[in-house]
Amino acid sequence: MTAHTPNEQARSRIRAAYDPELLRRAGHVLMDRLADHLAAVRDGAGPVLPWHHPPDSICRAADITERFLPPGVDRDALVDHFRELVATMLEHGLNLHHPRYIGHQVPAPVPIAGLFDAVGSITNQVMAIYDMGPWATAVEWAMVERLGEQIGWRPGAFSGLVTHGGSLANFTALLTARNVALPDCWERGIASHASPPVLVVQSDAHYCVSRAAGMLGMGTEQVVRVGLDSRRRMDPNRLDKTLAALRDENRRVVAVVACACSTPIGAFDPLEEIAEVCQRHEVWMHVDAAHGGCACLSSRYGHLVSGLHLADSLIWDAHKMLFVPGLCALVFYRNPKHRFETFRQDAPYLFDPAAPGLADYDSGLRTVECTKRAAAFGLWGVWSMFGPQLFADMVDVTFDMGRVLYEKLLAAPDFQPLHEPQCNIVVFRHVPPSVENVPPERLGRFQLELRRRVIESGDFYVVSTTIDGVGALRVTIINPLTTPDDLDQLLNVLRTRGAELVGTAQ
Amino acid sequence: MTAHTPNEQARSRIRAAYDPELLRRAGHVLMDRLADHLAAVRDGAGPVLPWHHPPDSICRAADITERFLPPGVDRDALVDHFRELVATMLEHGLNLHHPRYIGHQVPAPVPIAGLFDAVGSITNQVMAIYDMGPWATAVEWAMVERLGEQIGWRPGAFSGLVTHGGSLANFTALLTARNVALPDCWERGIASHASPPVLVVQSDAHYCVSRAAGMLGMGTEQVVRVGLDSRRRMDPNRLDKTLAALRDENRRVVAVVACACSTPIGAFDPLEEIAEVCQRHEVWMHVDAAHGGCACLSSRYGHLVSGLHLADSLIWDAHKMLFVPGLCALVFYRNPKHRFETFRQDAPYLFDPAAPGLADYDSGLRTVECTKRAAAFGLWGVWSMFGPQLFADMVDVTFDMGRVLYEKLLAAPDFQPLHEPQCNIVVFRHVPPSVENVPPERLGRFQLELRRRVIESGDFYVVSTTIDGVGALRVTIINPLTTPDDLDQLLNVLRTRGAELVGTAQ
Repeated sequence: MTAHTPNEQARSRIRAAYDPELLRRAGHVLMDRLADHLAAVRDGAGPVLPWHHPPDSICRAADITERFLPPGVDRDALVDHFRELVATMLEHGLNLHHPRYIGHQVPAPVPIAGLFDAVGSITNQVMAIYDMGPWATAVEWAMVERLGEQIGWRPGAFSGLVTHGGSLANFTALLTARNVALPDCWERGIASHASPPVLVVQSDAHYCVSRAAGMLGMGTEQVVRVGLDSRRRMDPNRLDKTLAALRDENRRVVAVVACACSTPIGAFDPLEEIAEVCQRHEVWMHVDAAHGGCACLSSRYGHLVSGLHLADSLIWDAHKMLFVPGLCALVFYRNPKHRFETFRQDAPYLFDPAAPGLADYDSGLRTVECTKRAAAFGLWGVWSMFGPQLFADMVDVTFDMGRVLYEKLLAAPDFQPLHEPQCNIVVFRHVPPSVENVPPERLGRFQLELRRRVIESGDFYVVSTTIDGVGALRVTIINPLTTPDDLDQLLNVLRTRGAELVGTAQ
Repeated sequence: MTAHTPNEQARSRIRAAYDPELLRRAGHVLMDRLADHLAAVRDGAGPVLPWHHPPDSICRAADITERFLPPGVDRDALVDHFRELVATMLEHGLNLHHPRYIGHQVPAPVPIAGLFDAVGSITNQVMAIYDMGPWATAVEWAMVERLGEQIGWRPGAFSGLVTHGGSLANFTALLTARNVALPDCWERGIASHASPPVLVVQSDAHYCVSRAAGMLGMGTEQVVRVGLDSRRRMDPNRLDKTLAALRDENRRVVAVVACACSTPIGAFDPLEEIAEVCQRHEVWMHVDAAHGGCACLSSRYGHLVSGLHLADSLIWDAHKMLFVPGLCALVFYRNPKHRFETFRQDAPYLFDPAAPGLADYDSGLRTVECTKRAAAFGLWGVWSMFGPQLFADMVDVTFDMGRVLYEKLLAAPDFQPLHEPQCNIVVFRHVPPSVENVPPERLGRFQLELRRRVIESGDFYVVSTTIDGVGALRVTIINPLTTPDDLDQLLNVLRTRGAELVGTAQ
C-alpha cells in the first residue's frame, strides 16, 4: 500500500461505523431506554445521585474504553454493546428529572429539547459562518428576536447571540464593555493604561464576574464591590457613591454588573434605579440575568426584572430557567452596534469577501467560539412545540415553590430560613436542638456535612453555600414536577440525616 | 389562586411536556428520519448545501415559533408537529455526511457519537463540580488519559480538560501561560506592566490566537509573527532570532504558539526544533494541534507531530479529526501543576469545604465554563464501540485523500496546487485559459466567486482562503467516505461553474 492508495480494510471499518442502519437500531434502543428511565426517575425511583468515589468512576470509564469490539462484528453485536454503554451512563449519572433534585441552577430539562439537540449533533449542524449552519443561524436569530421582545426591546433595535454557558456569556459582554470603555485596548492592550480600569459589581455576583476581570487583563483586585441592602440587593445609593468616588480618583469604570438574580440567595437588584445611576455616570450597565431573565416571560413575576431593557448588555441562560439542556446562554446588547466591538478581526478563510452582505450572519464575528454548536435548537424546538405559555408556567410553578418551601421552613422550629425568597432559590439552616447554641463556625460546618451526607445517600440533591461566612443549605426548585410533598420530605430527610450526624439516631 | 398555590392548569401543561411517552414516540420518529436522511446523503442524494438567503431562513424559523400547538392537544398531534419540525431542520441544514462536503475543518461525524451526546442532553448530565456530573467527569478524565498517552505522556504525569471549541481551548491555554509568565497579572492586571508582554506566533496561526491576545488584555499589536519557511512552517532559526531580539528589548514573552497544523494550508511546524529553541529561551511552548493532533493516532502519519509531547500546553479538537460532533476540544498541560494556574478563585456554593479531596475533580476550577456539557460522551462512546483503530483509519484515509487530490491537480493543466499537502487540507486555484494571464487580484477574485457559485449550486461545499493576499480554493477532505471519484467530479464541477462564471458555457 502506498501513501495514496486508500486502504480497503480501513474503508470497510469506516463504513461499518457510519452505517445508517446501526444508527437506526441503536437509536430505537436508546429511545426506549431513555423513556423508561425518565418515567422511573420522574416517579421518584432510585437515588437522585448514585454516589461513587471519583477514582472508581474514572477507572470504570477508562476500563470500558479497552473493551471495544473487534472489527468485522455484526450489527447485532454492536447494538448490544451500545445498549450496555447506555445503561452504564444512566446508572452513573445524576438524575435531574428526579423530583428530589433541588440543587444547583441546572434544570430537569424538557426531554424533547434533547431530541432537537440530537438533530444538531448527529448531522453536526454547527455555526461560524452562515453557510456552515444556515438553519442553526436562522434558529438562533429567531430565538434572540423572540426573547429580546420579551425583554422589552423593539424588533431589530437590539442584538444578541448564543454562547456556551453563563460564564462565557458574562465574559463576552464584559469584553465588549471593556473595548467600548477603553477604545485602544483591543489593539494596544491594558499595559498602556497608567491607572488600572475597574469593574463595579454586586457583592454577591457569581464568581465568573471576578474571573472575567482576571481573564481580561484587568485584574481581580480591580473589582470594586458595591454594598448590599438588607435583602442582599445592590444598593443604588451606595452604587452612586462608589461611582462618584471612582470618578474623583480618575479611575475608568468598564461596567457596573448587577444581578437578576444573585447566585447565593436569588436576590433581584433594583434595575430601574441602578440604570438611572449608571446613565447619570455614563457607565455601561451589565446585568447577569442568567437565572432571572426568565421572569420577563411571566405576568406574575415580570416585576422582578423591571428595567432589564435599560441594560447596555445582559446575559440570560436558557439552560437554567428555560429548561433546556446545557449549554445555551444568550448575550444581548441594547445597542446593536456593540455586537462588533467584542472582536475586531478577520480571517480570510472564514469571512468571504465575495459575499460581503453575509458577514452579519457569521456568528464567529461575535462569539468566542469559532465553530459553534447549534445551541439554540432545543429552545427553538420546545418553543415551537408548546409556545411561550409553557415557559411562563415553569417559571410560575417553580418560583411559587420557593415560597412554599419558605413557609414550611418558617413553620418548622428546627429550620431557619435566611431570607424571604424572591424566586425558586431558598437558603436556610437546619438547627436541631443539639446545634442550637454552638458557635457559628460549627453551625455552618454542620450544614455542609449534612448536605454531603444527604447527597451521598441519594435521598435528595441539595447545595450548600456560606452566608456572611457561615455555612448554610441552599435549594433551587428547578424541576417543575417537584411537589410540596417532596419539600415536606426534604425537611424529614434533613432531620433524619442530621440526627445521624450528631450521633442521635431518631 | 394565591402566589403559593401552584396552578393546576400550569402543572398539567408541564406534565404533558415532560411526558416520557412523548419522548419515546418522538424519539422513534426521529431515529427513522435521521437514518433515512443519512443513508440518502451518504449516497450523494440532494444538494450538499440547500442555499437560502439568511433573511428568508430567519423569517421561516421565526414564523415556525408562532405555530405552536394549543395546550391540551393529544400526543399524536404533538408527534406529528415534531415530525414536521425535524423535516424542516434536515431540509435546511448543511449536509456534512454528503461525500462532496469537503469544506471547513468540521467533519461528517460518526453518527452514533450523536446518540451518546443525546444521553447527555436528554438527561442533562453536566459538569462544574464532580457530583453534578459524576459520569461526565469520569468519561472526560478517561479520554484525557487515553489521548494524553497517545501524545506520548506517562499516565498521571500530565493534565487535561475538555472545553467548547478550539478558540476557547487556545484561549484557556494562553490564559494559563499568561498567568505563569506574569505571576501577579491575575490579581493586579496588566496595567501594572510598564512594557507590554508579547505573544510569539506562527504567521499563519488561526485568528483566534491573535484574538486571545486582545481578550487577555495584552493587545493584538503585541503579537509577534515568526517568519515561515518555503512550506509555510514556522522557521526555528527565525524563532530563535525573534526570541533573542525580544530578550534584548526586555520584552516578556507569554508563549510561543506553533501549529500542527496551520489552518490555511495545513502545514505542520517542526515541533522538536521549536521545543529546543523554546527551552533554550525558557519560554512557554504552546501548540495549536486542533486539527493535526490526530496524527499521533496513526502509525503512518505520526511523524508529523513528532515532538508534540514537548509542548507546555497544546489543544486538540476531537470535533475535527476525531470525527465527533461539535464541540469537544481538549487542552493539555505537560506539567499537571499548571491546571490550577488558569483561575485562582473559589465559590462557596460550588466548591465544598466539607469534601476537600473532591475539588480536583471539579471541572469548574479549570475551565472557562462553570456549568459544562458532557462534551466527551461522543468521543468516549465511539472509542468504546470501535477502539482506537477506527480513529487511525479515519486519519489515514482522509490524509491519503489529500495526496490523491494533489496528484489530480498536478495532472490537470487548468488547476494549480499551491503546496504539497501534508494532510487532508489542499489549497489550489482553478486557472482556465480565460484567467491565465489576468492580474493576481482578478485571478483571486475568480476563485472566491467560483467558490460562492459552487456552494450555492449545492454540487460541492468547498472553502476559499487567500495565500499571499490572493484568493484561492481550499478543500479539507473530512468525510472519510469521500472517494477519489468525488474528487474527479470536483474538478469537473469547478470547470463547468468556472466556465459559467466567465460567460463561456461549455
